[in-house]
Amino acid sequence: MQEEIVQQVINEVRKKLSPSETEAQKTPEKSMAGFTEYVGNAFGDTIGLVIANLDPVLQEKLGIGGQYRSIGIIGSRTGAGPQIMACDEAVKASNTELVKFELARDTKGGGGHGTLAIFGAEEVSDARRAVEIALKALSWTFGDIYMNEAGNFCELQYTARASYALNKYYNAPLGKAWGLIVGCPAGVGVLMADTALKAANVEIVMHASPALNTSYTNEFMIMITGDSGAVKQAVIAGREVGLKAVTTLGGPPKSLQTPYIR
Amino acid sequence: MQEEIVQQVINEVRKKLSPSETEAQKTPEKSMAGFTEYVGNAFGDTIGLVIANLDPVLQEKLGIGGQYRSIGIIGSRTGAGPQIMACDEAVKASNTELVKFELARDTKGGGGHGTLAIFGAEEVSDARRAVEIALKALSWTFGDIYMNEAGNFCELQYTARASYALNKYYNAPLGKAWGLIVGCPAGVGVLMADTALKAANVEIVMHASPALNTSYTNEFMIMITGDSGAVKQAVIAGREVGLKAVTTLGGPPKSLQTPYIR
Amino acid sequence: MQEEIVQQVINEVRKKLSPSETEAQKTPEKSMAGFTEYVGNAFGDTIGLVIANLDPVLQEKLGIGGQYRSIGIIGSRTGAGPQIMACDEAVKASNTELVKFELARDTKGGGGHGTLAIFGAEEVSDARRAVEIALKALSWTFGDIYMNEAGNFCELQYTARASYALNKYYNAPLGKAWGLIVGCPAGVGVLMADTALKAANVEIVMHASPALNTSYTNEFMIMITGDSGAVKQAVIAGREVGLKAVTTLGGPPKSLQTPYIR
Repeated sequence: MQEEIVQQVINEVRKKLSPSETEAQKTPEKSMAGFTEYVGNAFGDTIGLVIANLDPVLQEKLGIGGQYRSIGIIGSRTGAGPQIMACDEAVKASNTELVKFELARDTKGGGGHGTLAIFGAEEVSDARRAVEIALKALSWTFGDIYMNEAGNFCELQYTARASYALNKYYNAPLGKAWGLIVGCPAGVGVLMADTALKAANVEIVMHASPALNTSYTNEFMIMITGDSGAVKQAVIAGREVGLKAVTTLGGPPKSLQTPYIR
Repeated sequence: MQEEIVQQVINEVRKKLSPSETEAQKTPEKSMAGFTEYVGNAFGDTIGLVIANLDPVLQEKLGIGGQYRSIGIIGSRTGAGPQIMACDEAVKASNTELVKFELARDTKGGGGHGTLAIFGAEEVSDARRAVEIALKALSWTFGDIYMNEAGNFCELQYTARASYALNKYYNAPLGKAWGLIVGCPAGVGVLMADTALKAANVEIVMHASPALNTSYTNEFMIMITGDSGAVKQAVIAGREVGLKAVTTLGGPPKSLQTPYIR
Repeated sequence: MQEEIVQQVINEVRKKLSPSETEAQKTPEKSMAGFTEYVGNAFGDTIGLVIANLDPVLQEKLGIGGQYRSIGIIGSRTGAGPQIMACDEAVKASNTELVKFELARDTKGGGGHGTLAIFGAEEVSDARRAVEIALKALSWTFGDIYMNEAGNFCELQYTARASYALNKYYNAPLGKAWGLIVGCPAGVGVLMADTALKAANVEIVMHASPALNTSYTNEFMIMITGDSGAVKQAVIAGREVGLKAVTTLGGPPKSLQTPYIR
C-alpha cells in the first residue's frame, strides 16, 4: 500500500513540477486568451502571436524592412531545430519572410536553446497564416528529439526540400535535402556527426558547438546537404549511435512526440 | 485520507526542492554568518557583501578606479531589473558609484539573468550603506515580476527619477522617468513592447533580445523614457497584455512580491 | 507514521528527479553500451568516447591537426574546473594533446559550465588511455566543489605541477603550482578572491566573471600561481570564506565527492 501511495505522489509531484507542457497543449480559445494578437500555443512552451500594424520605431529597432507592416511571432522556451523546421514549412506555404530567428540559451534548465522567430508580411492575414502553419508543424517537429530523465538528448531533423528559412539561417541549398544532427552533451554530438558523415555521401553546410554558432548550449551539431536518400541515411546513422550514447547518461531516451524520420 | 497525505507531501517536496528563497529571506545575524564582510541576504538568492580594503591587484583586474579603496557587492542568482533598480536607489542615497554591473545567464533554470553588481566607495561605511539600501530595495523591486508555475513571466520596472546607475548602464536620462518592459519567452516581450509604445508618447533608450544586449536570455525588452505619466501609462499597458500572453503559457502568473506600479 | 511516509516519498522523489548522477556512476559494461567508441561514464553526466579514424572533413571543421587521426572525447553537463584538472592529468600521463576545450553554459539549471574536451592522438590506444585517465580523475576532481540545496556553490582546484592542458587553456606556468578559486553567485567569488590574495604571496594568471572569460555563468574566479605552499594556502583561505558566504544562501554546502585539498 505504501508503495502505491509513493508512486501516486511521485506522479502528482512530477505533474505539478512541470505543468507547462500539459497546459501549453490545451490551446485556449481566442476569446479565453482575450487579446486580438493571440494565435495559439504549441509544444515547448511556444506562443504564436500576430501584430497587424507594428509600431514603426519598434520596427526600425528590430531591423525589419518597412514593407512589412504586419509581423507574426513564434516565441518558445524549448527548441531551435523544431522551430526552424516549422518556420520553414510556414514560409513555404505563406506569403511571408522569416525576418528574425534568434536563439536564447534556454530549454528551462536543459542543455539547449529557446527561440524568438518573427515573420514579416505585407498583410496581417499572411502573418497569421504563417504562425498557424508553424504552430501546427510544432506538433511533429519534436518527434526526433529523444530525451531521457536526466535531460540528455539527441536531435535529428530532415527535410527533402529546404525552403527560404533554412536557406537564410542555416545555409541549406534552396529546394534540396537538408538534415540536422545534434547531441547533448556536446561530446555525444561529435560522435553522431562522425558516424553520420561516414554513413553516406553528404556535405556539411554548417556546424556548431558550445563556443561556435550556438548561444553557449551544450550541443555539437552538423547540418548537411546532398541527395535526399544520402541525407536521410546519414541522419538515421547519427540517430542510432546517439541513442546508444545518451542511454549511458541516465537511461534510454524517449521521443518527445512521434518520430517522423523513417 | 490518501488525498491529504498526497497534498501534504507535495507541499513538503516543494518546500524541500526550492529551499533557497525561504532561507535567503531569513537574514542571518552577522555573528551567525561569522565573517566581517557579510551585510545580508535578500530575495533572488542575493547576498550583500562589503570589502573594506580591496586587494590592489584584484582592484586593477576588476578595472575599479584607485580612488575606491572599499567596495560593496550585490550577488544574485535571479534577476537583473530588480537589482539595477535597487542599485539605483542605493547610488541616489549614498556616496558611491556603481562600478560594475554584469549579467549572468542564470535564474536557476529560468529564462532570465543573475547579477554581479559592485559599488566603489572611498569609505567602507559608504559601501556598506549602499549595500544595505540595495538589499532593502530588493524587498519590493520584484513586485512587478509576474511568473507562472511554468516559469514564464513578464517584468515591469518604473522610476519617476532615474539616477546614476540607470544612467550609466541603461541610458536613462538623469533625473527623468525611466521604465522597463520585459517578456519571457521573448516573443511575449515583442508584443508587450508594441502595446506599450502605442499606449503613450515615450522614447526607447535601449532594447534587448536573446542575441542583443542580453546574456542570451529568453527575453525581449525595451527601456523607455518620457514624461513620468506617459512612461507609467506605457509600462501599465505592456503589463496588461503581458499578463494575458503569459497566462496562455502555463496558467496565470503571480507577482513575486507586491506590485508597486499603480 | 504519516511523517515516515512523507520522508520516504521525499527521498524517492529526490532520487527520481535527479537520477542522472546515480546512473552515470554505474559505468555500464562496454558490451551493454553496445558501440565500439564508448569508453565510460563519470560524475557530472560525463561521457568518455573515442574515435579511431576521425572523418577528415569533420577533423578540418573542428580545427584538429592532420597528425591526429584518433580523438578522445570528454562530454559533460556539469563542470569545467573538474574537467580541465582531469584532462591535465590525462595529458601528463598519455601521448596526447588537448586540442579542444569548450565551455557550455550548463550544469542542468545550476550556475556553472558544462564541457566539451577533445584529445588528439596519433594512435587510438593513446586517445583511449587519455579518456580513461580523465574519467578516473573525475572521481575526485569534484571533491572541492561545495554546493548547498539551493545550488549555490564554491569551487577550489589545486595542483602542485600543472601540465600542458592547464598551460594551454588557463595560463598555468608549466610544471608549477596552479590554483582555481570560484564562487557562485559571482559576488561570493569576488570575496573569495580578495581573501585568497591577501592570505599568501601568489600571482593571478587569469580571472573570469559573468561577462569575461566565462560562457555567461554566474561565477567569479581567479586562477593563481606561485610557490606550491602559497598557492595551497591561498586556495584554502578562499575556501574558508566561500563556505561561510554560500551558507547564508540556502544552508551549509556539502562536498560533491571527497575534498582533496588539505
